[in-house]
Amino acid sequence: MITSANNSSIKKLKKLRQKKYRVKERRFLVEGVHLVEEALVSNVAVDKLVTSEEAPLLSVDVSGQRVEEVSASVFATLSDTESPQGWLAVCHMPAEVEVPNGNVLLFDGIRDPGNLGTMIRTAEAAGLTGIYVSEDTVDVFNPKVIRATQGAMFHLPVITADLKKEVSSLKDKGIMIYGTDMHSGVSYRDAKPQGEELYALLLGNEARGISPELLRLTDETVSVPILGKAESLNVAVTAGIIMYEWIH
Amino acid sequence: MITSANNSSIKKLKKLRQKKYRVKERRFLVEGVHLVEEALVSNVAVDKLVTSEEAPLLSVDVSGQRVEEVSASVFATLSDTESPQGWLAVCHMPAEVEVPNGNVLLFDGIRDPGNLGTMIRTAEAAGLTGIYVSEDTVDVFNPKVIRATQGAMFHLPVITADLKKEVSSLKDKGIMIYGTDMHSGVSYRDAKPQGEELYALLLGNEARGISPELLRLTDETVSVPILGKAESLNVAVTAGIIMYEWIH
Repeated sequence: MITSANNSSIKKLKKLRQKKYRVKERRFLVEGVHLVEEALVSNVAVDKLVTSEEAPLLSVDVSGQRVEEVSASVFATLSDTESPQGWLAVCHMPAEVEVPNGNVLLFDGIRDPGNLGTMIRTAEAAGLTGIYVSEDTVDVFNPKVIRATQGAMFHLPVITADLKKEVSSLKDKGIMIYGTDMHSGVSYRDAKPQGEELYALLLGNEARGISPELLRLTDETVSVPILGKAESLNVAVTAGIIMYEWIH
Repeated sequence: MITSANNSSIKKLKKLRQKKYRVKERRFLVEGVHLVEEALVSNVAVDKLVTSEEAPLLSVDVSGQRVEEVSASVFATLSDTESPQGWLAVCHMPAEVEVPNGNVLLFDGIRDPGNLGTMIRTAEAAGLTGIYVSEDTVDVFNPKVIRATQGAMFHLPVITADLKKEVSSLKDKGIMIYGTDMHSGVSYRDAKPQGEELYALLLGNEARGISPELLRLTDETVSVPILGKAESLNVAVTAGIIMYEWIH
């Protein structure tokens, strides 16, 4: 059992809490009983598990996995939460990710980890096939994002991309591009794609919305009407309302 | 200008970051340019404003308000955010709050401030008339809740109540009580209230859902179907999807 936070292996793992090192090492940390179980039963390549002395047993098979036991105090230095559950999985980032044909989301500068993770979770639940995120969107492998996905990120491809190129390549495939805007556009109910028509739904930054140059490239602007005095809805709620309305 | 964090008035204000003192003093803090402006134009009674030396001008009239200027470092000790915007409003909790006749939400043990605030924001936007929350739901006057409401809490009554009593009093008024559950019940689309029928939608704790004794009192259980592998949706997304589907 590792009992020192200065252990070199622990120091390396701790660095994975920073995006810079995640990108360099192509690895990321998954924390918590439920999420580690989700990672183990998904297609994600698990490098090793880290467990604290007081951790509960997992309900999935961990034989065949490298397991490193650490003291509770060492585990706390690796953890992103205030009440660690004693399980971490060190996972490899998927190499080449492809988005199957289907409905997709595009995120232009989403900044809040909770919003990003929640939208990944909802998109997976609503049957979408993938997500494209701009470079200035919060890192998908950020622990708070992973937690908010509740494991959905293991089942849905999320690709960082130049959205302008992506929009044009989606258009070439005949997919309609819908931009969301709170203050203009067709009501999302009236804009519902018909029959077999595929859609790409573009959502913008929490404060400033979709950048004008991207909005110009969309085929249609849709909005979720507000009956009260609120100026807007939370972006993850907006995405959820539209995705579910657009299920046939 | 107050330049010491040990100033007695500052010490008192700082205590309002704790629920105990908010309840005792019947006052709460509202922070940030947008939220302070929303408080000023709403019916909430503003006791005074606190501003830091570097704060921007507000776009609403503050003449007639007591304004206390403090140094940036003193302001930082009052602030709940990492990048304070230099404006705080000290507000009085509304005394007697009544919920007008209409559709309402009931929250049984919502724990995450972001979820609570987001649901208040969405409910106000979707035209609901009020919200009843259980005693073990996170405090509505928690700064993180207030931020997530984006000001909607100033326009929608939120009442802490014994939900069992509330459910029975809503039933007496002929209002249908719908409980949400991810794993059983009628699809929310099929359960859509017809015509003039009013509804009360009950949402449960993020981990364990609605408590069994409350669920038993509901008239119908509704669920949002999952097409992917996710086990559930985020509670605020679930609430948003159902409220918007149930708009006529």
